[in-house]
Amino acid sequence: MQPETLNAAIIIIGNEILSGKTQDLNVQFLALQLADLGIRLNEVRIIPDISEDIINTVNKLRKKYTYVFTTGGIGPTHDDITAKAIADAFNEELLLNEDAKSIIEKHVRECDKVIREDHIRMAYMPKSANLLLNLETGAPGFRIENVFVMAGVPYIMQSIFMEAKKLLKQGKPILSEAIEINLSEGLIAKPFADLQNKYPTIEMGSYPFKQQDKKWKTNLVLRGDDQELIRQVKIELLEIIGKIKD
Amino acid sequence: MQPETLNAAIIIIGNEILSGKTQDLNVQFLALQLADLGIRLNEVRIIPDISEDIINTVNKLRKKYTYVFTTGGIGPTHDDITAKAIADAFNEELLLNEDAKSIIEKHVRECDKVIREDHIRMAYMPKSANLLLNLETGAPGFRIENVFVMAGVPYIMQSIFMEAKKLLKQGKPILSEAIEINLSEGLIAKPFADLQNKYPTIEMGSYPFKQQDKKWKTNLVLRGDDQELIRQVKIELLEIIGKIKD
Repeated sequence: MQPETLNAAIIIIGNEILSGKTQDLNVQFLALQLADLGIRLNEVRIIPDISEDIINTVNKLRKKYTYVFTTGGIGPTHDDITAKAIADAFNEELLLNEDAKSIIEKHVRECDKVIREDHIRMAYMPKSANLLLNLETGAPGFRIENVFVMAGVPYIMQSIFMEAKKLLKQGKPILSEAIEINLSEGLIAKPFADLQNKYPTIEMGSYPFKQQDKKWKTNLVLRGDDQELIRQVKIELLEIIGKIKD
Repeated sequence: MQPETLNAAIIIIGNEILSGKTQDLNVQFLALQLADLGIRLNEVRIIPDISEDIINTVNKLRKKYTYVFTTGGIGPTHDDITAKAIADAFNEELLLNEDAKSIIEKHVRECDKVIREDHIRMAYMPKSANLLLNLETGAPGFRIENVFVMAGVPYIMQSIFMEAKKLLKQGKPILSEAIEINLSEGLIAKPFADLQNKYPTIEMGSYPFKQQDKKWKTNLVLRGDDQELIRQVKIELLEIIGKIKD
């Protein structure tokens, strides 16, 4: 039996990213985690805090991919509209989740704060949502079908993702090997293309970068799920590089 | 006459971002530049180096927004497929652009390198493309209608964007004011929501973060294009904050 192909999309819900106020750090964290789980990240969308945009994007992507991960918009303020939008996307009611309420109340008490209506607002979720615990700040994320709804603040998102992770199927980890060469891309382009044609199941990428001393280097990356094949192609690539004269 | 609303989308073409290998730095740079030009960034998509995905995404977004900016995939290696995909999206031929060829040849000569076929590969562009000069490494980006095609390496992208910028219409700059408060979000949520309802044309966001000393702070952000109104709302918000007891 062919193993199932697992893939995913991330939806970053965040005016703060689109305005340039905040540098996104969640995509790279999730991308590395998913690669490790053998889940291919096929797409990321960064969208504004607009209900209709969230509903449309979630409904499009949840049908297309094994998993969808959203970050942002589940806090206590008026601009946090993700939970309601997700409920709408699934045609479900937004209800007070009693477990979430207890967790939030406990956390607020432990911080010696007074519980307010706005804290409890974070306990409203789509009817069939399952909680994803947040060990950092209490207020949980949730899963509904194949959609995982997480906070936007990176360390809280990461805590919620560790819970989400337990519920994910795993594929063969996507392995990657990088070779850094002291050559510009132009010199390796032709033989590297030939190598890609010879081994189509290995994804080969070339990423130039400039060093502090202004010299160009290039990272050649081999990606795939067949460790032995990657090893073999790497040896071949090293031989090719050895023959190139700058 | 109502001033025209200018908006934009960014398409990041990059397996290296989706694999987690590279941290994207282009979104924030472009987001800040566009806000400054009064162009609203409505959406970002990060997609793989797959021709069909590039074609579909470009064709969807160029009809929806005033401007589309792509980054990535215009180098000399086999995984650089953006120029061809853009030509396909516009049903145009991919042709050797003689101006681009001269620029690339000049740059390669200046670096005392031998010109190769793969260098010249970067001079192939859709027939009606206009060059966007790249003062850093020679190989230019290009514009076709409302789509601006740029490199993925941040400092090269920035150089090309400075050329693109000259061709953009400008709206009223989108201004933002941030107030940092020593309160968690829960305490400000209710009055901040009331303020948002009172001033619907100002976009108000609340962004919590944790300090090194583990105390919560919150950034309250006001955004809009009416400087006087933002000033007035900021004063009102400061009064509200002054009355809150932790």
